[in-house]
Amino acid sequence: MIGVGVIGYGYWGPNLVRNFAETQGAAVVAVSDSNPKRLDLVAARFPYVQTSADAETLIANTNVDLVAISTPVDTHFELAMKALKAGKHVLVEKPLTRTEDEALRLLDEAARRNLRIAVDHTFVFTGAVRKIRELVEQGELGDLYYYDSTRINLGLFQRDVDVIWDLAVHDLAIMDHLLPQHPVAVSATGLSHVPGRTENIAYLTLFFEQQMIAHVNVNWLSPVKVRRTMLSGSKKMVVYDDLEITEKVKVYDKGITLRSSEDFYQALVGYRTGDMWAPQLDTTEALTMEARNIIQAIETGGALTADGWAGLRTVRVLEAATASMKNRGNMIELRAAKVGA
Amino acid sequence: MIGVGVIGYGYWGPNLVRNFAETQGAAVVAVSDSNPKRLDLVAARFPYVQTSADAETLIANTNVDLVAISTPVDTHFELAMKALKAGKHVLVEKPLTRTEDEALRLLDEAARRNLRIAVDHTFVFTGAVRKIRELVEQGELGDLYYYDSTRINLGLFQRDVDVIWDLAVHDLAIMDHLLPQHPVAVSATGLSHVPGRTENIAYLTLFFEQQMIAHVNVNWLSPVKVRRTMLSGSKKMVVYDDLEITEKVKVYDKGITLRSSEDFYQALVGYRTGDMWAPQLDTTEALTMEARNIIQAIETGGALTADGWAGLRTVRVLEAATASMKNRGNMIELRAAKVGA
Amino acid sequence: MIGVGVIGYGYWGPNLVRNFAETQGAAVVAVSDSNPKRLDLVAARFPYVQTSADAETLIANTNVDLVAISTPVDTHFELAMKALKAGKHVLVEKPLTRTEDEALRLLDEAARRNLRIAVDHTFVFTGAVRKIRELVEQGELGDLYYYDSTRINLGLFQRDVDVIWDLAVHDLAIMDHLLPQHPVAVSATGLSHVPGRTENIAYLTLFFEQQMIAHVNVNWLSPVKVRRTMLSGSKKMVVYDDLEITEKVKVYDKGITLRSSEDFYQALVGYRTGDMWAPQLDTTEALTMEARNIIQAIETGGALTADGWAGLRTVRVLEAATASMKNRGNMIELRAAKVGA
Amino acid sequence: MIGVGVIGYGYWGPNLVRNFAETQGAAVVAVSDSNPKRLDLVAARFPYVQTSADAETLIANTNVDLVAISTPVDTHFELAMKALKAGKHVLVEKPLTRTEDEALRLLDEAARRNLRIAVDHTFVFTGAVRKIRELVEQGELGDLYYYDSTRINLGLFQRDVDVIWDLAVHDLAIMDHLLPQHPVAVSATGLSHVPGRTENIAYLTLFFEQQMIAHVNVNWLSPVKVRRTMLSGSKKMVVYDDLEITEKVKVYDKGITLRSSEDFYQALVGYRTGDMWAPQLDTTEALTMEARNIIQAIETGGALTADGWAGLRTVRVLEAATASMKNRGNMIELRAAKVGA
Repeated sequence: MIGVGVIGYGYWGPNLVRNFAETQGAAVVAVSDSNPKRLDLVAARFPYVQTSADAETLIANTNVDLVAISTPVDTHFELAMKALKAGKHVLVEKPLTRTEDEALRLLDEAARRNLRIAVDHTFVFTGAVRKIRELVEQGELGDLYYYDSTRINLGLFQRDVDVIWDLAVHDLAIMDHLLPQHPVAVSATGLSHVPGRTENIAYLTLFFEQQMIAHVNVNWLSPVKVRRTMLSGSKKMVVYDDLEITEKVKVYDKGITLRSSEDFYQALVGYRTGDMWAPQLDTTEALTMEARNIIQAIETGGALTADGWAGLRTVRVLEAATASMKNRGNMIELRAAKVGA
Repeated sequence: MIGVGVIGYGYWGPNLVRNFAETQGAAVVAVSDSNPKRLDLVAARFPYVQTSADAETLIANTNVDLVAISTPVDTHFELAMKALKAGKHVLVEKPLTRTEDEALRLLDEAARRNLRIAVDHTFVFTGAVRKIRELVEQGELGDLYYYDSTRINLGLFQRDVDVIWDLAVHDLAIMDHLLPQHPVAVSATGLSHVPGRTENIAYLTLFFEQQMIAHVNVNWLSPVKVRRTMLSGSKKMVVYDDLEITEKVKVYDKGITLRSSEDFYQALVGYRTGDMWAPQLDTTEALTMEARNIIQAIETGGALTADGWAGLRTVRVLEAATASMKNRGNMIELRAAKVGA
Repeated sequence: MIGVGVIGYGYWGPNLVRNFAETQGAAVVAVSDSNPKRLDLVAARFPYVQTSADAETLIANTNVDLVAISTPVDTHFELAMKALKAGKHVLVEKPLTRTEDEALRLLDEAARRNLRIAVDHTFVFTGAVRKIRELVEQGELGDLYYYDSTRINLGLFQRDVDVIWDLAVHDLAIMDHLLPQHPVAVSATGLSHVPGRTENIAYLTLFFEQQMIAHVNVNWLSPVKVRRTMLSGSKKMVVYDDLEITEKVKVYDKGITLRSSEDFYQALVGYRTGDMWAPQLDTTEALTMEARNIIQAIETGGALTADGWAGLRTVRVLEAATASMKNRGNMIELRAAKVGA
Repeated sequence: MIGVGVIGYGYWGPNLVRNFAETQGAAVVAVSDSNPKRLDLVAARFPYVQTSADAETLIANTNVDLVAISTPVDTHFELAMKALKAGKHVLVEKPLTRTEDEALRLLDEAARRNLRIAVDHTFVFTGAVRKIRELVEQGELGDLYYYDSTRINLGLFQRDVDVIWDLAVHDLAIMDHLLPQHPVAVSATGLSHVPGRTENIAYLTLFFEQQMIAHVNVNWLSPVKVRRTMLSGSKKMVVYDDLEITEKVKVYDKGITLRSSEDFYQALVGYRTGDMWAPQLDTTEALTMEARNIIQAIETGGALTADGWAGLRTVRVLEAATASMKNRGNMIELRAAKVGA
């Protein structure tokens, strides 16, 4: 039985508690939050759980094997490091840290202590993303051409992070999971409309070694809500609309056909259009799948679907994107650092 | 009565002929096209019109006062210059020319000869764009925050131009018409998926002197067709969906409210949401409005809604965008050249 | 302070408890349900509330002033009658009773004892229906032409009632609230696709004294979910789509214009089309509004928005519709009985 | 070569002329219309075609083998009878005639003279309906449960026919083509909102011998245009939305599952939900397919996809529906008459 402690019981923490509580092999044993009212809620619903105003008590609890951190991003590094140093596995809400350097230090610490770091890239556990990954892995889409995502709404202007760190992080996590390669450079543009605030509208382009490109459009100031992601390949093209109730993923048997012509540089382009297909998706809650994966990985030493390296790679792109955005789109190469275990 | 000659009777030329034929004060007197079958079509429908395989005969026709050029872009400059030198007014299909320099030389020639140059920015004559311009001019939208357009489909891969020159040109023409300022810099990214071909997917960001940003997403390789443009301001936000049959323009009474807080740099952001309104739009064919505007401008010396300067400004951005795209998004400033009469 | 007792804590009962618990002037004092597990849920969340397996204990509780009945329809009459005889006001889930006769007996009993009967026609308290009623009352729609509703999905086949009593009841309740007149006749058709079960697909037409007609399409066996209601008048037309997230109500300034012609019997019909407008709607939970209305009505003697007469009129149409359906659409007149206080 | 004469060159006639002109084995040789301006259009585009103000000249033309009648419905019988008596095959626009009796007399005349009668049920030649028929014939849908169609818009109020004859006729023609059985009874309701005019809103229910039901909702006074038809069976369910540009037909792998329970009359109902699939549809113009079918049928003696019996059966239901509607929904049985060759 893996004892789980959850730090932070605000918006997301209750979901972590509920899902770990229902996961076979796990038991929620401690919750900490600086707000006593929130702790009262925990006590009422989970009377056997230790509650504390400070994270240190939770980390010191010997029944806690895994510390799940659901607090603002600027506290992630410190809390995760403390937990690791106390010999606990950790799950950190996305984005993993503020900087790639912080992420690397956590990974080093965990490696030295033979502990696991998971990052809470929830979207990669949804039925939609899992189905798309299946299609990619089976080669159904052919060579990948582009990933293009629009993630906009009239949203909560965050205080601490810009719209890239708030919304584009989801797309970076999804791409890290779906795409066979990692981006090699990024160009981003954006703007803040509120004096003294971070950018509330941003556009990212990611470059790859292959003939592929990715683009993310994020916006806190849109009159309409859009969550539409396209992943197109040489064989098939996927449109993933997260606002659809039932047919979230549509697979189009459409594309171009190329015939070489006499002129080597002038391929003839034709068009191909076939059926559309909306596969049934597993509707299990994403966090349920995630909790199971983490508990099993700890118990068996098996693979984490979203490990610390995934978190690090995502933070690396976020850092570069913000830097490029400050410089009006000038491309930043993602240095050829270590990107996985 | 203004005599009109139309060069090129392929996809768009027949629309020019039909609309000028029905415009009060205009008469179509000549059509030229290198394809004799097309000229047969003209002869059958408009038996009184002079047809010729070469443009020179048309330009030399003394009954022709206005030469409308509907041919590939790399012929625009030469044909327009010949027409001007023969003392004819010209209407040139978009984009006006291949380069800003060519555009400038046409404008100079026309100015010297006191002739009019119109560019065929058809979209600015649609009921939708005219209504949005009305809203902008009346201050209904407040300070403009951003223009964001998605113009994608599984489309004809053009041989001579990239997807920016083919599709983004519409957005640049619309912005030139709608926005109170012109862009000062551009960053563009894109990719070609077909060896030896121009880019078929591209992303443009335009920067302005004010707190405004514009972005255009164009793609010839999308499984779904999208034509959605947003223009958001501090008071209201417009969504223009050109694929809607009846409610193409929706005006949202939504936005943010700012309260200054104790900390000068930390404005408090609130949200405001009210009614949505879809104004009835004039459904007159855009080209009918355009033909009327051009004929009236020639007859009365009045203003052209889309004149050669609009064409030049659009070409300037297109040139810079393509250059930035070759350089993976590195920003290019639009030099402070003459931008209008 | 009005003490509220809720009978039945299955699907809907918890919503009743939660809303009355938050309503000023009300206190939930008792809950009964035959299922002890459900009572445990009540005890955990509302420790001060009396729970009982039987309704009689709740009805006998002297702190209970209002009995809310949220049980299967065939128990409504008996429970409501017991509550009235014990001197309690009652709120009964829709449909009020199985028959008009039962409804009338409840109304008589309540009148004799000077108690209130409310029926839980929740939809009439939604922001959408309240806005449409406002438009009707202000004459914005002009003379009403028709009400046309489609309420279909792949739904739970009910055991005790047919699809009319399950789904069309919502439209009958909405019409009872919105329309200035009550229907005078009904014709219904339908079919059961499951041996031994009630009809799972049905179509109702309601006739009125004026030049108005109403139609309701209900179906438990539809692959897609639709909740679209139209209310059209001589001036404006409303489309109410309950599945829309934000713009549920759209008001179209469209219609026909009539000119009398020389031939008296051949009016000339023209068409009129103007703006569309989606008013912002109050998003207060419907049941919150309903609970407030009931508590205020009891406290002040004021009007119930959905009283027992509304419940009776709805049951009358339901009874007639089922009878007509058994007879393949043969029209049934709704006898000119007493229809309101 | 089959010589084709087209009577009536108003809205639909030009489509008939264009399609027969392009059909192999056919030649348009004559067109008649009482309006001389329309004949001028014919002469300009098809100089070799005989034009006449009267139908008699066309019928008398010995080069005419097939007479296509595209005139108001109350002229169909007389013109078709004249053409048959002159030894011509006929194609009649829908609805075939005003009455079943007229239709029967035409069929008798044609049978005696060994001539073909086709009815212009264009929809059955669309790629969408052809695909759905394929699915029905292959048993993909299982036992058919219901046909449910909504065909509404703000439309032209017809002078001579009610909304059933104008719009529901399409659904009756489609059902006649798709369904394995013909309806045995009809119940219809409707209303006219314009004094002296026919019904502009109507609802039809059709009954069948099997456990199937059909319903059609037609309306000239709707603020929104809807063309949505559902055909559901025990295995799969089809939604056909004619306003969709690309995915007009969607096939849902959804339904109910029945388990017999101890109580014979109380089957247990479960739900099944799987993939959705939008098959690619043939986009050949329907009228092109229809013209080919008619010419081939005449040349080879092969089957007509929509023959006079289909026309007769449709008129029979139309007559009964209008009669039922006058009687507020009272069911009318469709007498067991001869319904096919």
